Amino acid sequence: MKVGIINVTGYAGIELARLLLQHPHVTLTSVTGRGEAGKRLPDVFPHLYRLPLEITPELGTVDLAFSALPHKASAEAVAPLVRQGVKVVDISADFRLPDVQEYEQWYGVKHAAPELLKEAVYGLTELHRQKIGKCRLVANPGCYPTSAILGLTPAVDNGLIEPDIIVDSKSGVSGAGRALSIGTHYSEVNENLSAYSLGGHRHLPEIVNELKVRKAGFQPRVTFLPHLVPMTRGILSSCYATLKPGALPEGKKGIQEVQRLYGDFYKGETFVRVTEAPPETKHTWGNNLCLIYPTVDVRTNRLIVISCIDNLVKGAAGQAIQNMNLMLGFPEAAGLQAAAVYP
Amino acid sequence: MKVGIINVTGYAGIELARLLLQHPHVTLTSVTGRGEAGKRLPDVFPHLYRLPLEITPELGTVDLAFSALPHKASAEAVAPLVRQGVKVVDISADFRLPDVQEYEQWYGVKHAAPELLKEAVYGLTELHRQKIGKCRLVANPGCYPTSAILGLTPAVDNGLIEPDIIVDSKSGVSGAGRALSIGTHYSEVNENLSAYSLGGHRHLPEIVNELKVRKAGFQPRVTFLPHLVPMTRGILSSCYATLKPGALPEGKKGIQEVQRLYGDFYKGETFVRVTEAPPETKHTWGNNLCLIYPTVDVRTNRLIVISCIDNLVKGAAGQAIQNMNLMLGFPEAAGLQAAAVYP
Amino acid sequence: MKVGIINVTGYAGIELARLLLQHPHVTLTSVTGRGEAGKRLPDVFPHLYRLPLEITPELGTVDLAFSALPHKASAEAVAPLVRQGVKVVDISADFRLPDVQEYEQWYGVKHAAPELLKEAVYGLTELHRQKIGKCRLVANPGCYPTSAILGLTPAVDNGLIEPDIIVDSKSGVSGAGRALSIGTHYSEVNENLSAYSLGGHRHLPEIVNELKVRKAGFQPRVTFLPHLVPMTRGILSSCYATLKPGALPEGKKGIQEVQRLYGDFYKGETFVRVTEAPPETKHTWGNNLCLIYPTVDVRTNRLIVISCIDNLVKGAAGQAIQNMNLMLGFPEAAGLQAAAVYP
Amino acid sequence: MKVGIINVTGYAGIELARLLLQHPHVTLTSVTGRGEAGKRLPDVFPHLYRLPLEITPELGTVDLAFSALPHKASAEAVAPLVRQGVKVVDISADFRLPDVQEYEQWYGVKHAAPELLKEAVYGLTELHRQKIGKCRLVANPGCYPTSAILGLTPAVDNGLIEPDIIVDSKSGVSGAGRALSIGTHYSEVNENLSAYSLGGHRHLPEIVNELKVRKAGFQPRVTFLPHLVPMTRGILSSCYATLKPGALPEGKKGIQEVQRLYGDFYKGETFVRVTEAPPETKHTWGNNLCLIYPTVDVRTNRLIVISCIDNLVKGAAGQAIQNMNLMLGFPEAAGLQAAAVYP
Repeated sequence: MKVGIINVTGYAGIELARLLLQHPHVTLTSVTGRGEAGKRLPDVFPHLYRLPLEITPELGTVDLAFSALPHKASAEAVAPLVRQGVKVVDISADFRLPDVQEYEQWYGVKHAAPELLKEAVYGLTELHRQKIGKCRLVANPGCYPTSAILGLTPAVDNGLIEPDIIVDSKSGVSGAGRALSIGTHYSEVNENLSAYSLGGHRHLPEIVNELKVRKAGFQPRVTFLPHLVPMTRGILSSCYATLKPGALPEGKKGIQEVQRLYGDFYKGETFVRVTEAPPETKHTWGNNLCLIYPTVDVRTNRLIVISCIDNLVKGAAGQAIQNMNLMLGFPEAAGLQAAAVYP
Repeated sequence: MKVGIINVTGYAGIELARLLLQHPHVTLTSVTGRGEAGKRLPDVFPHLYRLPLEITPELGTVDLAFSALPHKASAEAVAPLVRQGVKVVDISADFRLPDVQEYEQWYGVKHAAPELLKEAVYGLTELHRQKIGKCRLVANPGCYPTSAILGLTPAVDNGLIEPDIIVDSKSGVSGAGRALSIGTHYSEVNENLSAYSLGGHRHLPEIVNELKVRKAGFQPRVTFLPHLVPMTRGILSSCYATLKPGALPEGKKGIQEVQRLYGDFYKGETFVRVTEAPPETKHTWGNNLCLIYPTVDVRTNRLIVISCIDNLVKGAAGQAIQNMNLMLGFPEAAGLQAAAVYP
Repeated sequence: MKVGIINVTGYAGIELARLLLQHPHVTLTSVTGRGEAGKRLPDVFPHLYRLPLEITPELGTVDLAFSALPHKASAEAVAPLVRQGVKVVDISADFRLPDVQEYEQWYGVKHAAPELLKEAVYGLTELHRQKIGKCRLVANPGCYPTSAILGLTPAVDNGLIEPDIIVDSKSGVSGAGRALSIGTHYSEVNENLSAYSLGGHRHLPEIVNELKVRKAGFQPRVTFLPHLVPMTRGILSSCYATLKPGALPEGKKGIQEVQRLYGDFYKGETFVRVTEAPPETKHTWGNNLCLIYPTVDVRTNRLIVISCIDNLVKGAAGQAIQNMNLMLGFPEAAGLQAAAVYP
Repeated sequence: MKVGIINVTGYAGIELARLLLQHPHVTLTSVTGRGEAGKRLPDVFPHLYRLPLEITPELGTVDLAFSALPHKASAEAVAPLVRQGVKVVDISADFRLPDVQEYEQWYGVKHAAPELLKEAVYGLTELHRQKIGKCRLVANPGCYPTSAILGLTPAVDNGLIEPDIIVDSKSGVSGAGRALSIGTHYSEVNENLSAYSLGGHRHLPEIVNELKVRKAGFQPRVTFLPHLVPMTRGILSSCYATLKPGALPEGKKGIQEVQRLYGDFYKGETFVRVTEAPPETKHTWGNNLCLIYPTVDVRTNRLIVISCIDNLVKGAAGQAIQNMNLMLGFPEAAGLQAAAVYP
């Protein structure tokens, strides 16, 4: 089958192209990108030398399109495609928040295709597999929400935690995209560490929305704080929540029990692994894994969950392909099996 | 006056030597270090070429000694010095916890000089200035506790927060010392991020002890989680606590009020600065500043405090010299005024 | 077919395991490593979770073995295998230098299996493809020599250059292996750059030997200087040589001509690409490419060749698999087609 | 005395401000920078919080001005100052090349003040100390030329080498300035290494000019190739030249002799140190040293010189202050004595 990438020139788009090269069942036949239109893909990205496609202003005929456009522009671009029957995985934020008002508040723009919000499926594959398989428009989750939601959902579903939740996330710099800014200038970022968006980050409502639909009456109060770390790829989210009284046995038994519950929750998953030791982002470098380590701070009876992903793979392009596989009827892991690159 | 460094060959010891080079009132006259004894300091550390001291097995006669030995060995080495009337700043953990049992539990060794615990002063300079000026043994704080305690104390003192506190700290690799381990191997750490000591880190009791003595009846329940970040220097601690009902006005006014309270608390301090924008570790690179940014997550009524230091300076050698200045009657900032190196 | 890795626990061994996971025609069935014997591979290297092999002290029955042991130990281990009819790709230096005396001088040890030197083939695949396909013992080239020899051979073969050659190479830290040393400690290497082995590096004779066999009477006088660069993967070699008078047209035409000659030389190669713009190591990150850019410094009539590889792939494990493919009769590129990971 | 910085907002300007803060004899009283005019210095650069100067569009009255403007703009700005009797250290390239035609060829612009070329002194302090002390306009050298010329001059002066010289330089990213470009984007530079300016870099004529004036009849033919290394600060230049027959004794004696000659040449220098072991850029991090290690490749009779500096200090702001000290009659090392920051 033929697939295309709208706006291939950002990091999510480029990563899609890299991963699709290895896909056994689809062929990337069309890539767009206004700034570089007219050039061949390898002229701009030499590592894609085996993909000698021309970057065009408009998408050619494809069975499924990935949109890696910024928000607003993305909804504008994909709405006509969906209407024409092209399946779409939208990597932008445009269809992630079901409530159009919430979207317009956080993003400060008018939604370009609110009529599609109802049918769009939030593409956290492990949690919405069935709907994704049947839909024609997937809202691919944000990178931070992917790590946080996968890390917290088993605790919510098992009724382990109070609604007060803190998500302290740390991301590599590629999460800020390929656009130029002083905040991604090498000399400014290297040997530096900072928190940002202290007034509220747009990924917060995604996290809240997904957690609150898990359990009737669960009204999460989430503080989400992202940090910029001097590395290219990787997100590690440290999630904290108070355990409900009696939710777990005391002491080490509680730790074992929470690990068992998480293990059961993700049993059989190809891309979510509950680890026996605290994971490191490097163990996901370049591949589609989410590594999750739940434990208990027995001194304070608090749940701690560490969740690691590669922000460009499970946090963007990889999960998009995982969703595409479901939408097109391929095995969910097709084309996504390469091991992380270590060291 | 003459000062000496016991175990100059670790990163805290080396940093002491670098900073003392610029000190106007003391002279570094003796440095020890068993592994490298017999060599000249510049032969091992070329950047110290202006300090052609021989590294000796035993300390010469000095007015004040810094000990940069590991715990246990440090107490053994400094106890006789203190008895001889040499003032000591101990950078190890040996005199940080006033309760010998707590010490022995966390460090798994018998304390080598418990009789000195009573007189040792915890050297968080801004909080114990007067006692430090009069004592002969300072327990120089750990790097993480320095950032966390300075970040949280104004909130505790002003009665702003509930005792449930989360300290999510991120440190550069030099905090792990100069000893060799797979965890500090470049290829393992670079492009990697991990949480560690999930079962409890030894800096936790320092943080709890200092916070609980601030206010009668305040019994902090602290979860402290350190992370290793691919950079050489810098600690950023993100501290979270629930605000007491009515402690601050709602919305933006609460943010302004907490910034005012913090500003007042640290008014006149040379090395603690309350910033108007979220700080970055790079702004403390190589110098003795602690930068603190308090704010409120108005959606959840939670206090967030960001606290940045250079782990080797304010988190170790710089604060040790700050304490030395008080102990020897010099201006507190003597020798510590160089600006951070940026970029 | 079954293959095994002797000493899987160094970076070359680990990278072999990662790449073999994707190989369509062979199965990794046995891995050794004394220090970690008894553990399962994923317990030591979590990214290899899909390879739940036990690390054993001795190799099981395989059709082909890779040895990633240090020199001397490698010859000792592979000699009996070769005699038993097991094909071997030796990643150590033991069989790279055909002259046993030269070997013993540079490596300071007695050769453990000199009788195999005659049949061992130097595994620079592009230059010795035919012999490799027929042999049973391949001496896999060093990382630096791979970049330098591929970069210089077209110039030698075309008679373009005088024998005075300078190879200034820069390598990421993984080239120094996984063993612990102060020279690979993160805090020492990060934000640092140094030249090493100024008295002569063991990869020099490999380079000289390969260049001098290219052309009768060509006696290269090579200065080779390696540098350590703060990154994990990648080698960039800058090669300089004086052009023979009249070897190329003057000015820009000379540049075009040398690019044409190089392009012709590597025409049809899957893993060597002559680029139109100076390459970057990132464009080879994690894959088996060697990118070569030849040009002329027209002011001094000097040839400059930039040659980039991933030291762990084309400089070690990838080229080893490329050689294995030839030895076992598979397509040369089997299992090695994944694109570089960028950014 | 009062000094000012024209265009304080680039890395050279910022570094000047940092270093001048520690200067015992001058006060920074005026800083310009059009983009940020009207803001206070600490609002843009928090590490300069002790310099609460307003950034103004035009320079105030000062005794000496540093210009950190780009070429062309710098000559335009400093020419009137010089005429008014203000001493100037120009960090741009505008007065480095004495031949106006050569300048206009390399920089592609018309020179804005050619009448000042004659009196401008090339500010490589160690080589032009006397003239610098008497002049009113110093052309502060480029970062690469500083490392290369200091590394090669003793060999030229002692008649050791043939004129064929290769300078392979490697620089940290701050050398590319604070302006935004894809070439300084963190995700592009990190874990990457590349050569650039293969067609000729503007620092080449500086190197050639300085070397050729050292010795009558010496006509250097220099190939200069810069590389971008993933670190913030530091330049390491590896210089290669063929030794004249008989210039040095053979073997190890030649190495000792060249080290002695270099040692003699730089005897008494505060900021140039001839080292006994190969230096690392980290040993110059943040300070004004140039570390030089000369040796001989005895196999090929080639001189190798390794030269390390911090590109922003000895390669820019530090050397500018060193020159200012001479121009204003202060001790040459005033304000420049802080040790490098290690690790």
